[in-house]
Amino acid sequence: MRRRLVVVGGDAAGLSGAAEARRTDPDLEIVVLERGPDVSYSACGLPYWIGGEVARESDLVSHDPAYFAERRDIEVRTGVEATGIDAAAGRVWTQDGEAVGYDALLVATGARPVRPPVPGVDLHGVLILRDMVSARALNARLQRGPARRALVVGTGALGLEGAEALLRRGLEVEAIEVAPRALPALAEPVAAPVVAALDAAGMEVRTGAKLQGIEPDGDGLVVTIDGGTRALDLVLLGTGVAPNAEVAAAAGCALGAGGAIAVDRRGRTSVEGIWAAGDSATAWHLVLERDVWMPLATTATRQGRVAGRDLAGGEGWFPGVLGSWMSTFGGVGFGAVGLDPAVAGQAGFVPREVVREGRDRSGYMPGTRPIVVRLVWDDPTGRLLGGQVAGGGEVAARLHSVSLAVGAGLEVRRLAEADLGYVPPLAPLRDPLQLAAGAAVGDAP
Amino acid sequence: MRRRLVVVGGDAAGLSGAAEARRTDPDLEIVVLERGPDVSYSACGLPYWIGGEVARESDLVSHDPAYFAERRDIEVRTGVEATGIDAAAGRVWTQDGEAVGYDALLVATGARPVRPPVPGVDLHGVLILRDMVSARALNARLQRGPARRALVVGTGALGLEGAEALLRRGLEVEAIEVAPRALPALAEPVAAPVVAALDAAGMEVRTGAKLQGIEPDGDGLVVTIDGGTRALDLVLLGTGVAPNAEVAAAAGCALGAGGAIAVDRRGRTSVEGIWAAGDSATAWHLVLERDVWMPLATTATRQGRVAGRDLAGGEGWFPGVLGSWMSTFGGVGFGAVGLDPAVAGQAGFVPREVVREGRDRSGYMPGTRPIVVRLVWDDPTGRLLGGQVAGGGEVAARLHSVSLAVGAGLEVRRLAEADLGYVPPLAPLRDPLQLAAGAAVGDAP
Repeated sequence: MRRRLVVVGGDAAGLSGAAEARRTDPDLEIVVLERGPDVSYSACGLPYWIGGEVARESDLVSHDPAYFAERRDIEVRTGVEATGIDAAAGRVWTQDGEAVGYDALLVATGARPVRPPVPGVDLHGVLILRDMVSARALNARLQRGPARRALVVGTGALGLEGAEALLRRGLEVEAIEVAPRALPALAEPVAAPVVAALDAAGMEVRTGAKLQGIEPDGDGLVVTIDGGTRALDLVLLGTGVAPNAEVAAAAGCALGAGGAIAVDRRGRTSVEGIWAAGDSATAWHLVLERDVWMPLATTATRQGRVAGRDLAGGEGWFPGVLGSWMSTFGGVGFGAVGLDPAVAGQAGFVPREVVREGRDRSGYMPGTRPIVVRLVWDDPTGRLLGGQVAGGGEVAARLHSVSLAVGAGLEVRRLAEADLGYVPPLAPLRDPLQLAAGAAVGDAP
Repeated sequence: MRRRLVVVGGDAAGLSGAAEARRTDPDLEIVVLERGPDVSYSACGLPYWIGGEVARESDLVSHDPAYFAERRDIEVRTGVEATGIDAAAGRVWTQDGEAVGYDALLVATGARPVRPPVPGVDLHGVLILRDMVSARALNARLQRGPARRALVVGTGALGLEGAEALLRRGLEVEAIEVAPRALPALAEPVAAPVVAALDAAGMEVRTGAKLQGIEPDGDGLVVTIDGGTRALDLVLLGTGVAPNAEVAAAAGCALGAGGAIAVDRRGRTSVEGIWAAGDSATAWHLVLERDVWMPLATTATRQGRVAGRDLAGGEGWFPGVLGSWMSTFGGVGFGAVGLDPAVAGQAGFVPREVVREGRDRSGYMPGTRPIVVRLVWDDPTGRLLGGQVAGGGEVAARLHSVSLAVGAGLEVRRLAEADLGYVPPLAPLRDPLQLAAGAAVGDAP
């Protein structure tokens, strides 16, 4: 009899795990159970479908179940929810009471949006943008019309991506943020160009503000913020997620950081025969040197591959994460890598930081734009611990440079001394990265 | 009496050296001698002024002599050529027979274009694009009109930047290249998107072709290529440069790689009291661990700073170069860092290479473009030795990532394992850098 892998969850972590398991062991029987109707789609692309930049929902789908069956010999079953695991017997129970036996189990159940504990937060017009189903609901609400005014709750990357999508659909959008300023994950001077883009888009952001309640009002909603009320057509929540770890926990899998399923560097949980990966699992942090929970699509696919390789008998070892993320609003790219000074200090480093603004290209070229770079390093060792970048032009790949440097444990002087190329229409003589790194080391050659 | 620094050459290396010397020693007397009429301008920006993207010649100028006099206490004298150095007496002779005494001398005399040894190559209509004077001559020729057809000799970065400028001015442009294909500095699959852009621009490129002679023909030229003749209005040479090392050599300075002035990591020549920097000097190569001659504006400014600091009594140490360069043609960015396999093999490495094509952003986003990445590494150690990148989207900063990795001596697996950020409109889930690095290490987590 063929050894059987059951995968619970049919998106980034689950399907990359299944595919890697297939590559590692051509004889494995592989069954993927997905509770929703959709598999193998880009959740991170949903705001761009809502916003109209991606024309069709189907553009976000990499492969359908038929592809996996015919091309990969992987059985993908949608509409099947795993409600329990009998680890001793090696069985998964589905919502219909069916028992699916496994030799290896990969739990890739993802994360779910957290609705803040506010009256009315479950009302029909309070929407989220997390998966295909929720995106369809939002799209249907927008198509039904008339929706003219929306409130976005939270101004992190998720909130701002949702806000931009709604702006593209012609809505007036305002946002509230409980922190004292928008995009609090970034240092104030790094967030500044994004805040300027919010202003330019005509988006009012109420900071230090608290959502107190939501009530239905005909086809719309009345929202109470800091004691005042306003009438809106819809509310979009961008207030974070929580790991779907309950089924694994009930089977005895130990939980770790953030309440996620604790896994080792090979993706193994504390229970023999059960692996976990992706947004439902912890991940090793390269700088903190401990497990963290930082759900990101990149981590999910990488962890899925590691677990899929390990459970199929191959060599899998997860190098670790830096929590690298990026986003964009109004043509301004932004993102972060590694530690900020507060976290670095808690972790026992002696953090120092510098912020410098440069240009994406030579200043005399038409259309050059500012780029702000923040670098955080450890004072005694000079080791680069993290960085943030925001601005126009090539922001993403500059964040890549910082990721590479932080991940490799390089000293900040390495960035100051790097021999970076230059040509006026693509990159300036002194890159913003080098201006910041040069300032960090007291200027540089 | 104040100690006096004399700098010969008033562009990138010379003026960055003078400025850094001033920062290091506020009491130094500093005199800069520049044989031409212009100082402190961006030579790399000249093609974009010729092409019209940069509106005014003056946009390329950072500072004029008055700025240096008033703000930096640096005397900049234009139209003064240093024709000899008396190192024993500490004097520079100018073309007018004037003796300018120095305590420290910084030779930053740059490089000059090499005209191929072909009859007629010095004719009036055979132009170059190297400095302000030659750019003005080219611009004057184009303004005088009628110039409809141009031949560009050489298809390296210089040739292609010149070609694009002429295309923007409305000329029909063809090019010849002595190598069997265009842009021979890049591997064929990396050069491919640039070659496609040349095709799209309607530019005929004759490869494996030899320029045999140029003759005047009324207001134009008749050019002989591989035995055939063609009538043209102008020829633009993009056939490389040679170091201006003669005056320093006559003063006893040892020459090194490429016939350039040999300098140590502090910018010192073999003659006491004489420093050199920039296109006229050698530079330490980080991977080859020997001196090379690779004239680039980035190297010039960095070497200038190091020498300026050292000669003024500060701490200067040049980290080294990787020959990192980049350019762009027809919206396609391209460039290279470090060693190609041939050079790596000669240097005693066991080179391996991989080429992979990815996308600049998620494939479903509108306007995504391919990016080709080539990585070269040392097989026994896994150390990354070099890389080349070409394509659309963020090419420059991806080259930065490769520079950083090669310069820090990282293994190629570091790039494969890096935790790079992702968001569909800025960067794909798996970056082209990681596709290539993953392939190099037999795929990766």
